[in-house]
Amino acid sequence: MIRTFLLAGAAAVALAPAAHADALIDNVNGMTMDANGKVIRFTGLLLTPDGKVSKLLKSGDKRPEKLDWRSDMKGRVLLPGFVDAHGHVFAQGYRALELDLSDTTSLADAQTKIAAYARANPEKRWITGGGWNQEVWKLGRFPTSADLDAALGDRPVWLARADGHASWANSAALRAAGVTSKSVSPAGGRIEGGVFVDAAQSLIDKVVPQPLPRDMSQAFLAAQKILLRYGVTATADMGTSVEEWLAYRRLGDAGSLRVRIMSYGMGVDTAVKVAGAGPTPWLYNDRLRMGGIKLYEDGALGSRGAWLKQPYADAPGQSGAGFMADDVIRNLMVRAAMDNFQVAVHAIGDKANAEVLSAIEDISDSYKGDRRWRIEHAQIVDPADLPRFAKDNVIASMQPTHETSDWRMAEARLGPARLRGAYAWNAMLQSGARLAFGSDFPVEKPDPFAGWAAAFTRQDAAGEPFGGWQPDERITREQAWWALTAGGAWAGFAEDKFGRLAAGQRADFIIVDRDPLLASPTELRATKVLQTWIGGQKEYEAN
Amino acid sequence: MIRTFLLAGAAAVALAPAAHADALIDNVNGMTMDANGKVIRFTGLLLTPDGKVSKLLKSGDKRPEKLDWRSDMKGRVLLPGFVDAHGHVFAQGYRALELDLSDTTSLADAQTKIAAYARANPEKRWITGGGWNQEVWKLGRFPTSADLDAALGDRPVWLARADGHASWANSAALRAAGVTSKSVSPAGGRIEGGVFVDAAQSLIDKVVPQPLPRDMSQAFLAAQKILLRYGVTATADMGTSVEEWLAYRRLGDAGSLRVRIMSYGMGVDTAVKVAGAGPTPWLYNDRLRMGGIKLYEDGALGSRGAWLKQPYADAPGQSGAGFMADDVIRNLMVRAAMDNFQVAVHAIGDKANAEVLSAIEDISDSYKGDRRWRIEHAQIVDPADLPRFAKDNVIASMQPTHETSDWRMAEARLGPARLRGAYAWNAMLQSGARLAFGSDFPVEKPDPFAGWAAAFTRQDAAGEPFGGWQPDERITREQAWWALTAGGAWAGFAEDKFGRLAAGQRADFIIVDRDPLLASPTELRATKVLQTWIGGQKEYEAN
Repeated sequence: MIRTFLLAGAAAVALAPAAHADALIDNVNGMTMDANGKVIRFTGLLLTPDGKVSKLLKSGDKRPEKLDWRSDMKGRVLLPGFVDAHGHVFAQGYRALELDLSDTTSLADAQTKIAAYARANPEKRWITGGGWNQEVWKLGRFPTSADLDAALGDRPVWLARADGHASWANSAALRAAGVTSKSVSPAGGRIEGGVFVDAAQSLIDKVVPQPLPRDMSQAFLAAQKILLRYGVTATADMGTSVEEWLAYRRLGDAGSLRVRIMSYGMGVDTAVKVAGAGPTPWLYNDRLRMGGIKLYEDGALGSRGAWLKQPYADAPGQSGAGFMADDVIRNLMVRAAMDNFQVAVHAIGDKANAEVLSAIEDISDSYKGDRRWRIEHAQIVDPADLPRFAKDNVIASMQPTHETSDWRMAEARLGPARLRGAYAWNAMLQSGARLAFGSDFPVEKPDPFAGWAAAFTRQDAAGEPFGGWQPDERITREQAWWALTAGGAWAGFAEDKFGRLAAGQRADFIIVDRDPLLASPTELRATKVLQTWIGGQKEYEAN
Repeated sequence: MIRTFLLAGAAAVALAPAAHADALIDNVNGMTMDANGKVIRFTGLLLTPDGKVSKLLKSGDKRPEKLDWRSDMKGRVLLPGFVDAHGHVFAQGYRALELDLSDTTSLADAQTKIAAYARANPEKRWITGGGWNQEVWKLGRFPTSADLDAALGDRPVWLARADGHASWANSAALRAAGVTSKSVSPAGGRIEGGVFVDAAQSLIDKVVPQPLPRDMSQAFLAAQKILLRYGVTATADMGTSVEEWLAYRRLGDAGSLRVRIMSYGMGVDTAVKVAGAGPTPWLYNDRLRMGGIKLYEDGALGSRGAWLKQPYADAPGQSGAGFMADDVIRNLMVRAAMDNFQVAVHAIGDKANAEVLSAIEDISDSYKGDRRWRIEHAQIVDPADLPRFAKDNVIASMQPTHETSDWRMAEARLGPARLRGAYAWNAMLQSGARLAFGSDFPVEKPDPFAGWAAAFTRQDAAGEPFGGWQPDERITREQAWWALTAGGAWAGFAEDKFGRLAAGQRADFIIVDRDPLLASPTELRATKVLQTWIGGQKEYEAN
């Protein structure tokens, strides 16, 4: 008798929505892909009351008469929401709330902005932020502490490079951290004047005031606003800390978590601490899950932290370094795999990529099944190693805009001879590997249209270089669209939840002002997102 | 139009259960208290489908005809579930899973048990556990490392005293921690031979293997099983760590969290890290909330860590010590109060109680409103300070079984002259202070019937001392019942959710084998819990 009640109670919750009629988004110029990557067009989207897609309707299909509500989109274009396969959610929020140097064009420009920001924020004990890039500034060297002192000397300043793999300190920051010319970087990092690369950043980080929980909530909301504006309805968060996870939970409990987060714990210990002996369930109606771990095998190319097989062309004494010894990376991957956590490893340089592939090969006999090993960036790959992605079932999680931003720098770092496996999207696809595309926000803007255009042109917003950089590595517009949507969902074990518009998928979609399958690259980059919907609820509308 | 849908969607979820009829627990000998502490008797309990009480029915009341289900309790006694105002949930679980010395009657008995446990658990690198009490052993001193080496020398052993305020190490544990005869305790602790009191425990704790997340889940489930068996349906968790909170979330997400947890973060930093700028909402249908913080002003009486105004009678050179300087406790309380966290401070000795009361007086003008300041234990209070509880609106969160376990030890520690304000339940009530009763499990068993009988007899299970210890401090059976149910709920800001059976309260109740309002103290102690229900679902049934 009790059992009956309990079952009835459970059914009540599950079945309640069935008492309600469906809803209809009608009169759309709708397009999505099917499970095989084929484009499907439709004119109406029937939703279940719990915010899933119930059916795609063609123009001739009869519309249901009994509807809970109906929205007439007046023929505008409707697409599935974008899924960013690689982003840093809180970092994006801090970028929005702190000093942002990502649009500075010279050191002098940055110095002016730093001084103005400090004047405008007299209450801040430390000036923090980032986004600088000495390559963009055409400085030919890293900036120095003296360069920063010239802008601001009275308070500590600590500013991350655009890629997050190096940070720049003024003298007040060095003093606050007790760092002198005699200080030595921990393994996995180095100090160049006032710039601290990779692991060396910890020397200053440890004295920088940490964000309070309320700052973290504010940062998340700022990031979410940006993602919604770009039509990104789901994202991987590549390296979630325990504190960030707790913030996600607070936001989820309060109903403020709208964008879907595929969280990768920062290291095995974080994932185990948060999720225990395996991934968390999907929480908050498929809006949050910690399903895997993020590891770092090397640094970034811009700061010469990427691990190369041969020395840098523009720094013959350096070839970067691996962050983890052979046994360490294997032990970490085994610990994660034992508990069914997905493993995503950052690898930029060709040596780093080869090492991670070898580690996967070594352990994948023991850890079989649907593991979906991921290499994040897979930026510079030795052509000899390229087929190993497909062979080992390794997802290449890549960022098209890194190519258009970095190709000049990559040529300088590597020289022309080593670039055949660089940003090699088409070679990856041709070899049978799976692609997932992201932006690596806030390193790049989380603008999927910029990534999309880059993917089939290999040209930047200015149309450079003419004809595209290594144009053989262009992929088709449709292949790129897949990687920016369903590919990202698949890479996060979420292909049954979002990434396409099909019966049973969450109704995550955007309304845009043009047809992205017909637009020129320039037009595509200028696409305006008019509305962003998640789970059948409108979360953003352009003014 | 969209707005209409959203409202309709929300309503669908909220109203779905209304489609179902109520359920009835009928033919009960039911008793509860009303909001004024008056006993109410009833024969039927009408439940809403979402597990709340809808109505108490008297024998003459007509029963609804349309019911989802009905349970006939055949005249058995039904009571509200007990609310433990002060427990340590994970510690209870570890006690159940590790070596438990709480029933040892002598050092030799303990040594035998330790050796047997080590033989039975050859895979354990460390032998951990606790529950020993040199007072119960009538040892007249703390045990030594040599005493422990005699039981087990080949592996580290680290065993907590019954009160958790001291731990006992063997030589292997000392070696593992690098502790020698020259080692000095950090402030707030001391070392006596092989026993580490209060803060000194950290010297060894730092090298003890930490429980894995799966161990924590197992510990919680073991503790929950024990609580359900005793009819405890809600408990305060007095000092939840971040790791423990993450375990609660995993268990809640998986639907395994059944007992209701009023969580107090271990210190302000933990609460802020977990809950942000204020308490969490009630989660999992009122099963989990972090609403406050736990602080410690002193240690315990048994280990002479309690802070006294005058020296210990049996150790004239010692009077304990405060754990926090005046400004530290005030700063922590202010930080908590600013974010509306409730403040619960452990204070055992008369000096500690006076200090916490002074701190509350100093800041309560600035932090007004319904704060419900709590002093945990309020064990030895200077009679001159007693009226300050009522005057300052401070909840006295006390544990009746501490009195029956400790009175002999308290007489030895304090001498007879200072005991007028010891375990002074009736004086607290008469002065107008609010009582909340708990067990401090696992220090004592979480048996509410033992606490209840102690509260109105001041005698232990053996009937000692004859006539009750300081019998003026007995309170009535009904006053004690209130403190063990509604009093605990009120102390946790949960009085609108549980603690009594009334319309709108969660249907948390127990079926027992006798009428506790008529039973003799001995009979009351022997009460058997037959069933434990939480939120209208049966969670435990006796064999």
